[in-house]
Amino acid sequence: MRSLIDILDFSVEELDKIIETAIDISKKPEKYSAVCRDKILATLFFEPSTRTRLSFEAAMLRLGGKVLGFSDAGSSSAAKGESVADTAKTVSCYADIIAMRHPQEGAPYVASRAATIPVINAGDGGHNHPTQTLADLLTIKKETGRLHDLTVGLCGDLKYGRTVHSLISALSRYEGINIVLISPKELGIPDYVKADVLDKCEMNYRETECLEEALPSLDVLYMTRIQRERFSDPEEYERLKDSYILTLDKLDGAKKELCIMHPLPRVNEISVKVDDDPRACYFKQAKNGMYMRMALILKLLGYMGEVGDDATPETFESDELRCQNPKCITVTEQEIVHAFKKCDDGSVRCIYCENKVE
Amino acid sequence: MRSLIDILDFSVEELDKIIETAIDISKKPEKYSAVCRDKILATLFFEPSTRTRLSFEAAMLRLGGKVLGFSDAGSSSAAKGESVADTAKTVSCYADIIAMRHPQEGAPYVASRAATIPVINAGDGGHNHPTQTLADLLTIKKETGRLHDLTVGLCGDLKYGRTVHSLISALSRYEGINIVLISPKELGIPDYVKADVLDKCEMNYRETECLEEALPSLDVLYMTRIQRERFSDPEEYERLKDSYILTLDKLDGAKKELCIMHPLPRVNEISVKVDDDPRACYFKQAKNGMYMRMALILKLLGYMGEVGDDATPETFESDELRCQNPKCITVTEQEIVHAFKKCDDGSVRCIYCENKVE
Amino acid sequence: MRSLIDILDFSVEELDKIIETAIDISKKPEKYSAVCRDKILATLFFEPSTRTRLSFEAAMLRLGGKVLGFSDAGSSSAAKGESVADTAKTVSCYADIIAMRHPQEGAPYVASRAATIPVINAGDGGHNHPTQTLADLLTIKKETGRLHDLTVGLCGDLKYGRTVHSLISALSRYEGINIVLISPKELGIPDYVKADVLDKCEMNYRETECLEEALPSLDVLYMTRIQRERFSDPEEYERLKDSYILTLDKLDGAKKELCIMHPLPRVNEISVKVDDDPRACYFKQAKNGMYMRMALILKLLGYMGEVGDDATPETFESDELRCQNPKCITVTEQEIVHAFKKCDDGSVRCIYCENKVE
Repeated sequence: MRSLIDILDFSVEELDKIIETAIDISKKPEKYSAVCRDKILATLFFEPSTRTRLSFEAAMLRLGGKVLGFSDAGSSSAAKGESVADTAKTVSCYADIIAMRHPQEGAPYVASRAATIPVINAGDGGHNHPTQTLADLLTIKKETGRLHDLTVGLCGDLKYGRTVHSLISALSRYEGINIVLISPKELGIPDYVKADVLDKCEMNYRETECLEEALPSLDVLYMTRIQRERFSDPEEYERLKDSYILTLDKLDGAKKELCIMHPLPRVNEISVKVDDDPRACYFKQAKNGMYMRMALILKLLGYMGEVGDDATPETFESDELRCQNPKCITVTEQEIVHAFKKCDDGSVRCIYCENKVE
Repeated sequence: MRSLIDILDFSVEELDKIIETAIDISKKPEKYSAVCRDKILATLFFEPSTRTRLSFEAAMLRLGGKVLGFSDAGSSSAAKGESVADTAKTVSCYADIIAMRHPQEGAPYVASRAATIPVINAGDGGHNHPTQTLADLLTIKKETGRLHDLTVGLCGDLKYGRTVHSLISALSRYEGINIVLISPKELGIPDYVKADVLDKCEMNYRETECLEEALPSLDVLYMTRIQRERFSDPEEYERLKDSYILTLDKLDGAKKELCIMHPLPRVNEISVKVDDDPRACYFKQAKNGMYMRMALILKLLGYMGEVGDDATPETFESDELRCQNPKCITVTEQEIVHAFKKCDDGSVRCIYCENKVE
Repeated sequence: MRSLIDILDFSVEELDKIIETAIDISKKPEKYSAVCRDKILATLFFEPSTRTRLSFEAAMLRLGGKVLGFSDAGSSSAAKGESVADTAKTVSCYADIIAMRHPQEGAPYVASRAATIPVINAGDGGHNHPTQTLADLLTIKKETGRLHDLTVGLCGDLKYGRTVHSLISALSRYEGINIVLISPKELGIPDYVKADVLDKCEMNYRETECLEEALPSLDVLYMTRIQRERFSDPEEYERLKDSYILTLDKLDGAKKELCIMHPLPRVNEISVKVDDDPRACYFKQAKNGMYMRMALILKLLGYMGEVGDDATPETFESDELRCQNPKCITVTEQEIVHAFKKCDDGSVRCIYCENKVE
């Protein structure tokens, strides 16, 4: 059985197949409108995320399937102190596939190890959000015709921007990608992303604080929201939230076929006036997210042929060693096995949240 | 494409057709039980309203369609600062038709201008609630056999009672309607309703503070709830909430074929003992609401033939002029175009909440 | 029309038929996957209970039916002061069957008297939770092959444990049942359960404070959660919550074919290490809950043949007499008829919450 916790769980070949299927779905939706008849998707959202939840629900419904679940922890058994593993085991009795959103890093991975049905990570804190990356890849592919030889600008909050980190990881496996990191110093890309992805994969990248300077060279511009909830200091948020707003006049210097993306929801980082510009692709991106989730569900439920099993990384358990990440699911999950993995760079990481352990 | 924001968006002919269809649905439900197969309704409820939401969901399900959405703002992206327009654009990627409830006046209209699918106003603050009026019209038609030559009593909170205002507007287009306005002075019908509807359409109406005095003359009695949430002063609420309670003994003086209506939920304005009286029609009214929503969905999705496009009122934009209504969506919506319309009476109104602008 | 408010509403013969059907469903699910096409289940949850709600929704979806409803009172009309009876009458316009969870005792019974469709009690405060008992009976039947001649240990919170009381009542109708009550004195079985069930039905039972002492004799061990929400004094909760934890070593003394059950969610009363023991049946129990709810829906909707009508107990109304139970629905429901019944033991009880009235 396969789950999707991290975008790298799929090989490039698997991703290409999923993208291909998503494109076919977008062209002939009726062909797929009853494929999942009698299948149930459980959307387990321990924190609210309307867009992601509705996208998953629409995906399953458009496949002829059914949906149940909850939209925030308040109406879940977690309030009664149930573990994520038990919730996953129980929901496995009711549904055929799970999409889980959780504020704690590693929770969907815990669920995938306990569940007897496939689990899709719909976002776990600041850790992973692979289905957003699937939407991003399909959008780049459809709009530019390729996933290689591209200059991709990533703008805004690159420090806390989970979607940006996942996209860089995904692009690291394609040829000829140039990354331009556009952000204020306070919100620059974290060193571990440089070390573990950009440098490790010998990606071509540069950093700049000026959006206008970077724009002319870009094939893709990926704007991100500066998220209030990521800031400990509200004043710092107020000072930075208006940085890097994309307006029509700034676009004068950009390529005619630039692809402007945004994970949404947008606050004000892209002027509404840009929406009518043919280069604005962020609402197409939302639709692509639904198509990719449809393809992903088909993949994990075996409609694309043998899915095999989740890779089992080489790990070791420990009774002394503990993950120090306060947002890691190991902090709250009952009787969890504290397991770790040795990485190529010699570091030891928690297998759930992937934080380095000293 | 057509949306339903205000009951007057439909012509009398269109309303008659919708009522006719709803009656056919109520007689042969199985005939319609798969018409909307593969269609998705999005119920976007930015404030809770169980009855209205469940009625819409039941309507779509009984048409063979599917439903997704949220039941309060807490689990929506609005919490992350997303605009109503962006939510409408995004949900247009997932669904085929939207039913929106919002505490701010004009929000569904903003959505209808941004969405690429039909939008139904499921209630916007104290402004409009057209599908309630659809339920009311079908009930009057079924119970009295006509929508003309009727004496209609409206009782209770006529000041804040949105459903009453919409019903008066709807009835203003039929012949021989006598309106009897029954309320305490503090909750009397607002002057603008008199000026813009009752007087303007030369409707025959009178005001009284005494329910029993009015009862004998009525073909229809429309009771309304005195809503706590509409009062700034809780004491005034306590003093008035028990006014105008309908009891069995009060009904002695009423016609045998009186049609007693109530938008529900009821608190105590109609004694439970009245429920068994054949003249009590308020639960039939709830069922009629579902049938009319079914007919409305069929209408807007084009199953009743060409729907044409929303009427585009003559409007003008302004950078200085601002709507003064604190509950208007223009107060919070980002980068919204502040647009206004000149009305026959020479007044200038906000196109979103329809408040007069000085 | 029939509703299920109390497990004793069904005769032993009816229960056997429902169990038989549930077993058939579990063996040939596809045979039932479209039986309820065009039927709608309304899940009215006035307090959150994910597991129970998802189990009901999965049950209806697996029968080919549809679902609507709400998952907590906040998004219900109750917030606007609507009575349970009115909610039931209105939802009867939209759905074909209701599953209701409510914090007040007797609320589902009030609903069943007002509704025009069957009502299933999905838990009413500390009073009844019959569908949990249905899951329990199916599990015992499948795992031990019988519902008679069993030694059943009930462990943990027997004072507040509603599911335990219902199970004892259900088992009281079978032959050769030995009950072993395992709990700290503070959480012992209430006297009224002894008087009204154990003694009245001349059941064979004994009480003990020691789980290990009791284990060797048991065919079934029913563990229960010590629920925080049942304690007025948090310190007492802290002191007792870890009592009676089932661990692998404790199981050494148990029978090889012991059936370990738990209504779930579990906090820590059963060690996770026990999950892999073949005697652990609590997740099977969750799945059985879904199958029994499927069978129950078929029963109440008439797919198993004539259902007849709810039994009408001999009751008398009273204007002076009032139920003293502060958690009784009669405390808050508007204009409710205060009715009571004389019991065999000569006591007078509220017909809603079944509390004794002095």
